[in-house]
Amino acid sequence: MKGAPGTVYLVGAGPGDPGLITVRGLTLLRQADVVVHDRLIGRELLIEAKPDAECVDVGKVPGSHPQMQAYIHGLLVDRARDGKVVVRLKGGDPFVFGRGFEELTACREAAVPCVVVPGVTSAIAAPEAAGIPITHRHLVRSLAIFTGSTAEHTRAKPLDYRALAAMDVIVILMGRENLVDLCRGFLGAGLSGDTPAACISRGTTPQQRVTVATLATLADDVQRDSLESPVVTVIGQVAAFARDKDVARFWTADAVANDA
Amino acid sequence: MKGAPGTVYLVGAGPGDPGLITVRGLTLLRQADVVVHDRLIGRELLIEAKPDAECVDVGKVPGSHPQMQAYIHGLLVDRARDGKVVVRLKGGDPFVFGRGFEELTACREAAVPCVVVPGVTSAIAAPEAAGIPITHRHLVRSLAIFTGSTAEHTRAKPLDYRALAAMDVIVILMGRENLVDLCRGFLGAGLSGDTPAACISRGTTPQQRVTVATLATLADDVQRDSLESPVVTVIGQVAAFARDKDVARFWTADAVANDA
Repeated sequence: MKGAPGTVYLVGAGPGDPGLITVRGLTLLRQADVVVHDRLIGRELLIEAKPDAECVDVGKVPGSHPQMQAYIHGLLVDRARDGKVVVRLKGGDPFVFGRGFEELTACREAAVPCVVVPGVTSAIAAPEAAGIPITHRHLVRSLAIFTGSTAEHTRAKPLDYRALAAMDVIVILMGRENLVDLCRGFLGAGLSGDTPAACISRGTTPQQRVTVATLATLADDVQRDSLESPVVTVIGQVAAFARDKDVARFWTADAVANDA
Repeated sequence: MKGAPGTVYLVGAGPGDPGLITVRGLTLLRQADVVVHDRLIGRELLIEAKPDAECVDVGKVPGSHPQMQAYIHGLLVDRARDGKVVVRLKGGDPFVFGRGFEELTACREAAVPCVVVPGVTSAIAAPEAAGIPITHRHLVRSLAIFTGSTAEHTRAKPLDYRALAAMDVIVILMGRENLVDLCRGFLGAGLSGDTPAACISRGTTPQQRVTVATLATLADDVQRDSLESPVVTVIGQVAAFARDKDVARFWTADAVANDA
C-alpha cells in the first residue's frame, strides 16, 4: 500500500565548481533518497548524498535520445510514487537549455509534486571565471544567450545571426560541435573578424581551460588547443578581457590565500 | 603596522530567496569581518554574518550616484588593507548589470586581492519562480537579457529593438521605470501587441507578485497591480506560462509539503 507521493526536486547543480551549488540545492541533495544526475556532475557533489541513496547517472552524450528522456521521466515519477525524496541534479540551471520543463511536465501529468530550485548558469559563471565582465557597464547593455545544439531545439525557429550580431555580447552554450558553422554565420552576418572571442572549457573547475582569440580565428584556435566539452563561447568586446593564464587567481579563494 | 591585506569577495546573493545563495557565498558571509551590501539583501542573509561583523548598507536608489560608488570602492579597499575579510554582497550575480567589474578593478588597482563568487541571476530565477520555462525547448533557442536602466549604461550603444525583437524571448532587468517606453519600442519594432508578456516583482521571495499580460497591455496592467521594484520583465511566447496564483507551490519546498 502506498502513501502520499514523494517530491521531485529539479535542482541546478551550478557550473561545475561544487561550491557554486545553492544552499537549498545542497540541503535537498543531502536529504535525497534518489539522485538522478547528469553526466557532468562532479564527484565532490555526489558524495554529499546519503550513503544509501540510489544514485543514477542518466548522462547523455550530445545528440538526441528520446528513449533516455522517457526513461528519466519514468524514473522520477516511479520513485516519487514510492514515497521517495527524488533530486534530479542538472548542470547549471535546470531550465536553461535543458529538458527541465519536460521533466516538470511529466511529474505534473503524473500528479507528482515537483519543485524547481534554480542554479548558477555556466552561461554567466564560466565567462566570469575566465575574467570576462559579461555585462561591462560601458560596453554592454544587451546580452544574448543561445544554444549551439540544434538537436535539442528542433522546433524553435532558426537562428537569426544578424539579430544576434546586433547584441553587445553573445554567449553560446553547447557550441563546440558546430563552432565552425557558428563563427561563419556571424562573419556572414557582418561581424568583423577582429571581434574578440573566447571559449571556456569546463569553466569554474580545476580543469578549466580558456582560448582567447578573434571571431576569425576562434574555431581553429579551439581545435589547436583541443578544448573539451562543455564549452561556453563568448563573442563581443568583453571577450578581450579573458585571461588564459592566471584565471584561477581570479576566482579561487584558496589560490588567492596562497597568493597573499 | 599593517600585515598582508585581506581579501574582497564579490559575492552574488542570488535573486532574493536566501536559500538561493551559493554554498561558497554563505560560507564567506559567515567568515566576513565586513559586509558591504545592497539595499535589497534580505535580513535572513545578513543575520548569517558574525555578530561583531561590520555591516554597511550601500544600497542605492535607482539613478546615478558616482559619489556613492567612490565611497564603496574606498570602503572595500580600506577595510581589506586593514587585513579584514570583506564580503561585498550584491543581489543576483555580481557581474550581471551591476558595477561588480568596477569594484574588482578598484581592488586590483589598489593591489587588494579580489575574488568573484557567481550567483543565481534573477533574470532566470524570477521567471522560473513564476512558472515560466525561460528556454522552453520547442519555443526558445535564443534568449536576450538587457537592462532597462539607462543611467547605468550610458556609454553602451542604444538598444536595437528590432534585433531584440528577433530573439525568442526577451528578459528586461530594472525595466520598471521605463516600461511604457520599452513596450512602445518593441511594438514599434514590429512585435505583435498580442505577444505574451509578464512582470515578476520580488521574484523568489514571499513578496513575489506576478502580472501576466500582453505586450500591448503590460505597462497599464503593471501600473494597475502596483508592482514594486525590483521587477523582471519577460516578453515572448513562454511568458504565457506565467502563473499569478499558485506560483508558490511551483518552487517552495515547504508549500509543496503542506500541499501533499
